[in-house]
Amino acid sequence: MPPLSAPLSPETLARFVAIVGERHAVTEPAEQAAYLEEPRGLYHGATPVVLRPGSTAEVAAILRLATELGVPVVPQGGNTGLVGGQIPHDGEILLSLKRLDRIREIDSASSTMTAEAGVVLQAAQQAAAAVDRLFPLSLGAEGSCTIGGNLSTNAGGTAALAYGVARDLVLGLEVVLPDGRVWHGLNKLKKDNTGYDLKHLFMGAEGTLGVITAAVLKLFPAPKSVETAFVAVETPEAALALFGLVQGRAGGSLTSFELMARICLDMALRHGTNLRDPLTTPSPWYVLIEFSSGASEGLRDLLEETLGLALEQDLVTDAVMAESLEHRAAFWRLREFVSDAQRYEGGSIKQDVSVPVAAVPDFIRAASEAVTTLIPGCRPVPFGHLGDGNIHFNVSQPVGADKAAFLARWDAISDAVFAEVLSRGGSISAEHGIGVMKRDYLPRIKDPVALDLMRTFKAALDPAGILNPGKVV
Amino acid sequence: MPPLSAPLSPETLARFVAIVGERHAVTEPAEQAAYLEEPRGLYHGATPVVLRPGSTAEVAAILRLATELGVPVVPQGGNTGLVGGQIPHDGEILLSLKRLDRIREIDSASSTMTAEAGVVLQAAQQAAAAVDRLFPLSLGAEGSCTIGGNLSTNAGGTAALAYGVARDLVLGLEVVLPDGRVWHGLNKLKKDNTGYDLKHLFMGAEGTLGVITAAVLKLFPAPKSVETAFVAVETPEAALALFGLVQGRAGGSLTSFELMARICLDMALRHGTNLRDPLTTPSPWYVLIEFSSGASEGLRDLLEETLGLALEQDLVTDAVMAESLEHRAAFWRLREFVSDAQRYEGGSIKQDVSVPVAAVPDFIRAASEAVTTLIPGCRPVPFGHLGDGNIHFNVSQPVGADKAAFLARWDAISDAVFAEVLSRGGSISAEHGIGVMKRDYLPRIKDPVALDLMRTFKAALDPAGILNPGKVV
Repeated sequence: MPPLSAPLSPETLARFVAIVGERHAVTEPAEQAAYLEEPRGLYHGATPVVLRPGSTAEVAAILRLATELGVPVVPQGGNTGLVGGQIPHDGEILLSLKRLDRIREIDSASSTMTAEAGVVLQAAQQAAAAVDRLFPLSLGAEGSCTIGGNLSTNAGGTAALAYGVARDLVLGLEVVLPDGRVWHGLNKLKKDNTGYDLKHLFMGAEGTLGVITAAVLKLFPAPKSVETAFVAVETPEAALALFGLVQGRAGGSLTSFELMARICLDMALRHGTNLRDPLTTPSPWYVLIEFSSGASEGLRDLLEETLGLALEQDLVTDAVMAESLEHRAAFWRLREFVSDAQRYEGGSIKQDVSVPVAAVPDFIRAASEAVTTLIPGCRPVPFGHLGDGNIHFNVSQPVGADKAAFLARWDAISDAVFAEVLSRGGSISAEHGIGVMKRDYLPRIKDPVALDLMRTFKAALDPAGILNPGKVV
Repeated sequence: MPPLSAPLSPETLARFVAIVGERHAVTEPAEQAAYLEEPRGLYHGATPVVLRPGSTAEVAAILRLATELGVPVVPQGGNTGLVGGQIPHDGEILLSLKRLDRIREIDSASSTMTAEAGVVLQAAQQAAAAVDRLFPLSLGAEGSCTIGGNLSTNAGGTAALAYGVARDLVLGLEVVLPDGRVWHGLNKLKKDNTGYDLKHLFMGAEGTLGVITAAVLKLFPAPKSVETAFVAVETPEAALALFGLVQGRAGGSLTSFELMARICLDMALRHGTNLRDPLTTPSPWYVLIEFSSGASEGLRDLLEETLGLALEQDLVTDAVMAESLEHRAAFWRLREFVSDAQRYEGGSIKQDVSVPVAAVPDFIRAASEAVTTLIPGCRPVPFGHLGDGNIHFNVSQPVGADKAAFLARWDAISDAVFAEVLSRGGSISAEHGIGVMKRDYLPRIKDPVALDLMRTFKAALDPAGILNPGKVV
């Protein structure tokens, strides 16, 4: 059980404020607002104070005091999380990591960047590009989400197929434990077998086991060439077969393989500006394929030959390759606007799930049937990272239906989708985490021993239960 | 402190034997021998019984009983570990996982293999190849080491540059905890953010936190083309610059980048059969470079162009590309015989260390100076995975010196090498682990909070201290 937060006494509040200084303690409701509401407007928090520490030492002092006094604390990065993990639902102190925004070092020979938690993802990408390197993590919120949040939630995104998810991009961490101890684990080593791997426990823990204050990130050679195609396929089965073909031909050069149903394009084209259908004839399904390479030549031929082979094998019915950077950007704008476009179609119930790659087509079919049986006329809007088995199985309300009544069926829709996920050995949260949104599902879906282990680790690291209480476990 | 193992009473012994059946309980000293001595002959163990369970349930029953009775147990895979982690040093029961040798499933569409702990690495490689996939983990002991051991020690090897170390190749695990509970975590998902990541804690823990009984392994497209070059460079600095150049050009196609000093070749050529110098003129340093690709064409041109560029930039003084599979195999035989060749040169003191990639040249210089200052005439034999910052910094005795007297300086040599490693933010065990060999170093080299966390996790999972006592922590 999360500790219920008693109101802070003025004396206690003053002790916390003294750590960061009054300038960096936000108590005005108007100034707090940006920290308390999350992107979809599903959760609204309240806090006595937003603390904005400027150093790891200040974070440590805050948590030490919090443990001493039993005062709960919610850590927050860019406040872009989608499951309510970063919101103080019960009047906890809000710990914003945004001022820890220094890139401490870039070592281009070792291909590493040491960045603090509050560095915005896009700033990290740009800093890497400035030394001719790539930091490949890329997602919709990259203009405002932070490295600390990315790691705490183990973010995924569009480049995970080739480069892995956020945890795969980390060599070392600096973490403040709930009792204020600091684990100095900022090593730059690709191989280190001296004892237990600690860093992976903190990544993806959504700030419940410790506060990540800095990380050593892996950089990669900046691609010298990128080739992108927008491809029509008849079915998700054809898309899966195409994935096998493309991966076999391109190996590590295949950096994105994004599946979209026609309805995704319909909605995006209907509501987006500056968007157009890349192909002349509508198709029930599409794939956005991207190849990247450190070599400056040969990639276009490889993509062209691969698509030629796919056409011969009837896996693809139509295809267009980007002729310019602007053309490529247009493909991606279309893909990236899909989720936003749903806003204009009334209520939408969004699920971020994964299944084994081979099970994706069958899952999409079964989940679509399940939700349309439950709510006739509702519109599944499935899209996502096929190569990772990760589908954003979103459902828009029936045309003309009552939005509130539709959204009231959130749990019923979730249950129906999750049943199809779980029967295929899938995950009910591929990228977004658990937060509060999916916390109550965990006891139903997790192996009981795994759940026991999670509770064991939480109790061992945060016996006072002060860190992000009520989230995840 | 490890529990001192009291001799087992005949009744207790009988209870353990009953779990696996007499046929699978080895008590004859002659039959036990293969389990009790490790490859280098540095450690010799003793055990009342080698238990060879045939199922996860039997492993669970053994550990449950061990915890109940407080009887210590040492898990073992292929018995190829180099730091004594798999040896019962104190009369513990030996738990051999070798009979758990089934490949439970290969899902080629999802590119996964579910293998039990006792599957020999080479068998896993071959099973992947049979469905046109690659399981990339590759190391000298692959003919006898097992998947369970590979994961428990987080093995590295020659393909880590492109595919990562063992832990990077795992999607899910099945683990028996010290108290006999079984964590069923065999998922096949590339993305799963439902709660804490547990698997990474068991991997690399050298069997001190749980016994891995099965794993879901990632498979990759089988390469359609492989190109290999043997290249002469003047200095490790030139090798590092070459690495930057090659990686920038080849990206994910660069699968090996192995540095060797001339002395490595000298020793290998002196003692090996069927080996020859690939180049006509001796060079102080060499690099073995390998490119692999899912595309069948273009790779040779890419390697050729890249080497041409390197010659132009004076990074490389000579180079030869493999003209046939046999030619390629000859390059690799040379590389792989280096460590064995040292046997014929008297005593050798071997260190498996890593530093940030950029620090490799400086480390090699400084460590070589340090050991030759300590023992004039001793011969550093540095080689390894430059792209991972992982150098096997081996030292052979001075020619004609007394072997025993040289080996008696093991700790002094280690201290000298480790000082150079640590001052560069490196690791004293890049691949091989801690076991007993390096256990006493941990308190000196580990961040104290990290060490505390390790002890916290050990105490939480194995409060009775029955699992691989005295190893790692």
